[in-house]
Amino acid sequence: MLVVMRRGATAEEVQQVCDVIEEMGYQARPMPGAGRTSVGVVGNDGRVDASRIIPLAGVQECIHVTKPYKQVSREWKADHTVITFANGASIGGTDVAVMAGPCSVEGETEILEAARAVKAVGAGFLRGGAYKPRSSPYSFQGLGLKGLEFLACARDETGLLIITEAMDPEGLAAVSEMADVVQLGARNMQNYSLLKLLGKCGKPVLLKRGLSATIQELLLSAEYILDAGNPDVILCERGIRSFDTSTRNCFDLAAIAVVHQLSHLPIVADPSHGTGHRAYVPSMARAAIAAGADGLLIEVHPTPERALSDGAQTVSVTEFEAIMKDASIIAQAVGRRLAPAIA
Amino acid sequence: MLVVMRRGATAEEVQQVCDVIEEMGYQARPMPGAGRTSVGVVGNDGRVDASRIIPLAGVQECIHVTKPYKQVSREWKADHTVITFANGASIGGTDVAVMAGPCSVEGETEILEAARAVKAVGAGFLRGGAYKPRSSPYSFQGLGLKGLEFLACARDETGLLIITEAMDPEGLAAVSEMADVVQLGARNMQNYSLLKLLGKCGKPVLLKRGLSATIQELLLSAEYILDAGNPDVILCERGIRSFDTSTRNCFDLAAIAVVHQLSHLPIVADPSHGTGHRAYVPSMARAAIAAGADGLLIEVHPTPERALSDGAQTVSVTEFEAIMKDASIIAQAVGRRLAPAIA
Amino acid sequence: MLVVMRRGATAEEVQQVCDVIEEMGYQARPMPGAGRTSVGVVGNDGRVDASRIIPLAGVQECIHVTKPYKQVSREWKADHTVITFANGASIGGTDVAVMAGPCSVEGETEILEAARAVKAVGAGFLRGGAYKPRSSPYSFQGLGLKGLEFLACARDETGLLIITEAMDPEGLAAVSEMADVVQLGARNMQNYSLLKLLGKCGKPVLLKRGLSATIQELLLSAEYILDAGNPDVILCERGIRSFDTSTRNCFDLAAIAVVHQLSHLPIVADPSHGTGHRAYVPSMARAAIAAGADGLLIEVHPTPERALSDGAQTVSVTEFEAIMKDASIIAQAVGRRLAPAIA
Amino acid sequence: MLVVMRRGATAEEVQQVCDVIEEMGYQARPMPGAGRTSVGVVGNDGRVDASRIIPLAGVQECIHVTKPYKQVSREWKADHTVITFANGASIGGTDVAVMAGPCSVEGETEILEAARAVKAVGAGFLRGGAYKPRSSPYSFQGLGLKGLEFLACARDETGLLIITEAMDPEGLAAVSEMADVVQLGARNMQNYSLLKLLGKCGKPVLLKRGLSATIQELLLSAEYILDAGNPDVILCERGIRSFDTSTRNCFDLAAIAVVHQLSHLPIVADPSHGTGHRAYVPSMARAAIAAGADGLLIEVHPTPERALSDGAQTVSVTEFEAIMKDASIIAQAVGRRLAPAIA
Repeated sequence: MLVVMRRGATAEEVQQVCDVIEEMGYQARPMPGAGRTSVGVVGNDGRVDASRIIPLAGVQECIHVTKPYKQVSREWKADHTVITFANGASIGGTDVAVMAGPCSVEGETEILEAARAVKAVGAGFLRGGAYKPRSSPYSFQGLGLKGLEFLACARDETGLLIITEAMDPEGLAAVSEMADVVQLGARNMQNYSLLKLLGKCGKPVLLKRGLSATIQELLLSAEYILDAGNPDVILCERGIRSFDTSTRNCFDLAAIAVVHQLSHLPIVADPSHGTGHRAYVPSMARAAIAAGADGLLIEVHPTPERALSDGAQTVSVTEFEAIMKDASIIAQAVGRRLAPAIA
Repeated sequence: MLVVMRRGATAEEVQQVCDVIEEMGYQARPMPGAGRTSVGVVGNDGRVDASRIIPLAGVQECIHVTKPYKQVSREWKADHTVITFANGASIGGTDVAVMAGPCSVEGETEILEAARAVKAVGAGFLRGGAYKPRSSPYSFQGLGLKGLEFLACARDETGLLIITEAMDPEGLAAVSEMADVVQLGARNMQNYSLLKLLGKCGKPVLLKRGLSATIQELLLSAEYILDAGNPDVILCERGIRSFDTSTRNCFDLAAIAVVHQLSHLPIVADPSHGTGHRAYVPSMARAAIAAGADGLLIEVHPTPERALSDGAQTVSVTEFEAIMKDASIIAQAVGRRLAPAIA
Repeated sequence: MLVVMRRGATAEEVQQVCDVIEEMGYQARPMPGAGRTSVGVVGNDGRVDASRIIPLAGVQECIHVTKPYKQVSREWKADHTVITFANGASIGGTDVAVMAGPCSVEGETEILEAARAVKAVGAGFLRGGAYKPRSSPYSFQGLGLKGLEFLACARDETGLLIITEAMDPEGLAAVSEMADVVQLGARNMQNYSLLKLLGKCGKPVLLKRGLSATIQELLLSAEYILDAGNPDVILCERGIRSFDTSTRNCFDLAAIAVVHQLSHLPIVADPSHGTGHRAYVPSMARAAIAAGADGLLIEVHPTPERALSDGAQTVSVTEFEAIMKDASIIAQAVGRRLAPAIA
Repeated sequence: MLVVMRRGATAEEVQQVCDVIEEMGYQARPMPGAGRTSVGVVGNDGRVDASRIIPLAGVQECIHVTKPYKQVSREWKADHTVITFANGASIGGTDVAVMAGPCSVEGETEILEAARAVKAVGAGFLRGGAYKPRSSPYSFQGLGLKGLEFLACARDETGLLIITEAMDPEGLAAVSEMADVVQLGARNMQNYSLLKLLGKCGKPVLLKRGLSATIQELLLSAEYILDAGNPDVILCERGIRSFDTSTRNCFDLAAIAVVHQLSHLPIVADPSHGTGHRAYVPSMARAAIAAGADGLLIEVHPTPERALSDGAQTVSVTEFEAIMKDASIIAQAVGRRLAPAIA
């Protein structure tokens, strides 16, 4: 349930509402807004009885949230969530964010080369995995801590913000200290223990949709993070499993429209994993922006044919440049702009 | 196999190649092109031995087509297929075609009203079903011949081209006489008997992708039509089955990119069936054009809440107008234009 | 709606109920049962008002059928449907029917050899396609009428009942004259025009589940056949599309349990198409009977490696013999028996 | 690669082979067998050059393992893996193991009551979750350590072996100390960090198939556990995602046949999650055993309608008793027996 306070309700009135909620055995989540404050009620299993709250001073109305998720819903918070960074970049506002880089951090030279290249073309974020979830135990598993150090070097030199994945509590501690955005991979979307820790990690989280997750399950996983205290979640559509092998996954662009209707959280699109083929990335990047994506996540490598992982879906720097040009035109066509390159 | 003749090869040389192919037990399909002629070989089950053909006069090279489909492939014909109509409209060229109208023809007044409305907004094609495939035998099954008559009236008055579905040989005879484009529905995509008849129907065919058809299966179904003599096939992406019920189908926009790579046939997108919800049609129409769709198929009804079928995914005329405005901007952003309204 | 008459209601009372139903604009379907008669009401779109019918003489109660399908539902008819043949064979009773034979009729010698072999091992039905739905127009399309003649010869010699597929109205006329059971293939499960004709064909129908059909859609397709006048429908689970390519389809054995709960129609299982691999047919045949299947449909060929279609999923006669032995043991374990071999 | 030693090869010969493998930069895994010893080679990325190994004394042949997984494959180890417990129970041999109990441990009284009931009916293992992965953060998350204590009490009183789930490193430490079998849930099947820890946990692992995992991915996840040192992995088929909502999941019984062909590991079946409906559990339990399952995992609750989670798919004790009776008959029909009740 959501308790909406009147405009001008005092801090004492808000506090009293919180106290009554806690007395009733629930937790209160005061949310100061532009015009007025709301107080969310969580911890209930079913409908909350509003009769004790409605008569309290300063209360305007009580809204029952009918979805299984609450804090991520538009009913709970009507305004888009915009996540801002110290360098002025943002995700979820008018600007369409661009996150680019190799699948894996392969070495210091390689990641620096990639960072310089994607920065030159205009990306704002460098993405690259130091910890790599691989279906085979015999595949390259990432450079780990060393990889994080190389990413830090790349940030120091270029000013790009860093997105990288965490796979377990130990790795999360290291990643959340170093990275600007912590990624949770598709295979861990329902790793609830890790979701709870992400709620305390102190950094924005990029939450990738699971291989066969419904949109409702994606939102519920985001709800874990918000409920544990972290409001800065960026969802990511990266394709779902289907029966057709002509693409690696089925890139579900309607998910962008659905999420924007149901939730205030931003959602970005990953056409590299979404299709699995370099040739389809440019048109799907355009389509994603036209569909309303708040950002793009694109695998770029200076020499894709030498990439240690995901080479088939990785574009070259030249191809990335063309994608950016097109993306910029589509962004304008839908009344937005590609986030400007960092200085 | 495809036999490519030299520039300037004579009619006699082409004929001799055809004769040898027929002698070898296959069928020859001469295809005059802009610069030179090719001769397709069909009827083979496996690799054709080119050694008898290569030495013939006028032959430049023999290309083995490695896909299970042949005549629909880019290897067979590199140039886009552009289908043109008597009134100057076309599908598959630079113009993005717009096909709009109600799911079913419900009556003369209703279809005329719809036709006037979609024409006013700029559609070039009126779509509406006289024969309706319905999962329940107790649902409205369409007006049949009467519905075709009403569509003819709507064409007479507005000049819109007519697209309507055929479900069986008897219906196909009536539809192909009356309509400008014959639609084959998703549930009949692998009705091979009907596909063969469509190859002889004398009208362009709109072939909708089956609910769980792979792109290769879609192309093979198109191959049936081409192989039976009809080169004018328009493919249509309309969503595939998935596990997520937040949309009616999973709208597979990457199929547009895949088809454009593998085949010379045009492909249009149907965001109405693709999503099943009116609210998602505008963004998915934009995304489809950004992805390279050669046209849009949109369910429009003067009063969607009163539609006899598919009301939830049908947009109003006002909503359609807004979709057209956006679509036009995106079409320009990708170097195309929305097909101009008919006079 | 279903109007249940009292025990001992007279023919006049039943007639009066039918008259009122027709007056109300619906169709009446009187169904005499062992103890009493019911009258089904079809043609309604939504809930029927029972208030005019309840007061009529001889009426015991009115049951609203809440499923979109009616005549196939257990609510409509509680007893299993058992389909019997002139030679004493049956499908849907205690006996588990066995239908075996090659994918395609390949020639007179071949089908006779196959017929003798499967009869010797104990099958009661010979299955083999004269009309073959093939995804490629260049694949073997079946022998057509000639194939039907060969099947008739095989029946004359062996006494096996014949199951074979029809793909279109013309073929259906030939097949329904010749065959004992007419098969409708998975790709045509929602070919509603053909379903209506199957309702008039005068022979039992084997209706295969579509590649991505829900069980509700399968039942609705059966409803078309029953509603058009043919109560003898045998459903067939043959695997559905999934993302895993380790089997050709995902063999959904729970469908057997679901169908038995929702419907009175018999359901048989096809582990050959269900798995696509010979090696998995024996265990899946056992599992299907344990799950309650009313019959098995198994692809058997004297020399599977030379089969013109579906060789990988076809078992040899020796393998078939072993499957039958196991199947017989499992049938007994679930209180049934394998249908005895014909004399 | 797998190096097969001759019968009677000496310990020194085996050691020399291992030394050469290590010198080549790989790891050697000696596996003493009944008749002779093999030495597995891991750590290679691609084909290993056998030319240095074949000439060594005592070497019979080198087998290249062509699957992406190695140690779980039949090529690597032909004999079934049989996991035995101190009380004489086993999984993977002739006996079909039965694991039963409530979805969640709900309290001491409840779990004791459930334990006594399932023991009385003949189960050998008590399953119940102390840590519960729930899609919503607001659902009951399990009793945690307290739940583990209650399970220990139930074991002390009944002698049942305990299976319970671990969700993260911290929980795994507690679970692997207490439980007889550690379960990894479907949502964590590709949690590679946890898989590596399970390889060191010292207890057999029940690895549930992910919601949209291919069988190859399931085997690769098991490979992580074996490769980290734990050979005792029990796979579990529990249904996969499909488009049909008439069951909660699509219970893929062919997976049992496929796993038995590709791998030496035992596989059990969970018809409760596989179908999601109590009514379908009995027939699917029978089918699973007929398909060759090495065990059953069944949700049983003294009062299913009061269960805190998964009530709809949970059977009562009376229903469980009937399932066991049937299961026993089917087990005999396939030449096995239900594991005898513990003393």
